[in-house]
Amino acid sequence: MTEPAPLSDTDQKVLKRLRRIEGQVRGLQRMIEEGRDCHDILIQLSGVRNALDAAGEQILEQYASGCRAHPGETVTPQDVVRAVKLLRG
Amino acid sequence: MTEPAPLSDTDQKVLKRLRRIEGQVRGLQRMIEEGRDCHDILIQLSGVRNALDAAGEQILEQYASGCRAHPGETVTPQDVVRAVKLLRG
Amino acid sequence: MTEPAPLSDTDQKVLKRLRRIEGQVRGLQRMIEEGRDCHDILIQLSGVRNALDAAGEQILEQYASGCRAHPGETVTPQDVVRAVKLLRG
Amino acid sequence: MTEPAPLSDTDQKVLKRLRRIEGQVRGLQRMIEEGRDCHDILIQLSGVRNALDAAGEQILEQYASGCRAHPGETVTPQDVVRAVKLLRG
Repeated sequence: MTEPAPLSDTDQKVLKRLRRIEGQVRGLQRMIEEGRDCHDILIQLSGVRNALDAAGEQILEQYASGCRAHPGETVTPQDVVRAVKLLRG
Repeated sequence: MTEPAPLSDTDQKVLKRLRRIEGQVRGLQRMIEEGRDCHDILIQLSGVRNALDAAGEQILEQYASGCRAHPGETVTPQDVVRAVKLLRG
Repeated sequence: MTEPAPLSDTDQKVLKRLRRIEGQVRGLQRMIEEGRDCHDILIQLSGVRNALDAAGEQILEQYASGCRAHPGETVTPQDVVRAVKLLRG
Repeated sequence: MTEPAPLSDTDQKVLKRLRRIEGQVRGLQRMIEEGRDCHDILIQLSGVRNALDAAGEQILEQYASGCRAHPGETVTPQDVVRAVKLLRG
């Protein structure tokens, strides 16, 4: 498998955001272990989901200018619509 | 602060699910670092969000029977509606 | 079938909101028939979905204090959690 | 204003779906006026929201191949990503 193209700025931003999300999820675990207030737990969980949605949009943005796994291949507007459906699950 | 009530079965399930989500988020980071196919990355991200929504529903279920941070306090149907709004952010 | 309890204030608010949504959906149809700008169409559609989510929360609020189809029956916090799952589909 | 391009097949499908949604919203109003079971009302509302999301995806698909309000203008993958953000509101 050829070496993938170097990480773009957007990739770096997504990685940074995902590391933060990882920390927020660990934070959620601690809140439950410590028996914290349920409203605070739900607010934290809502925050994680919003951060995940934002990461999804950034990955879509990156994808629109090309996928590192397929260097040189053009991404069409229809490809982006298909990607949105994947994201919605 | 008084010791919180012991973790319920539902709490244990939520914790287990959150640890799995934490692993999935790390998996996402690796996929981006390795330059994996963007569709696979988006499918993984969609899976994490669905798992997070499922965790949210479990936390709501637990909350409906009482919040460990407020032992002895009854949770009303209106409290649950307010909690749903928090979850939606 | 016994006559349902009279419409509550919340029911009236939900009906008013649903009539507005009905008008917004007709407005969407006109925008497409007239070939309006696609961004404006998507913004209108997003507005309809937000109005629908708000109606859903109002119906949950009403349900939390009892369902008119089952007068005298108490709604429990667990009932509300089940209703939230129905709403999520 | 120049006459918009004729309605495409996708436009016709979206219009058909929006008319059905309009009917479903009227159905919701009747269910509330008649004091129908709250679970049935919530299931109907969830159905309307899913139909609206499907309409949104169809409009995105149509947009990806060009916006009738701007005949001859090419839509780029980045335009589609911007459209997705509008749809999310």
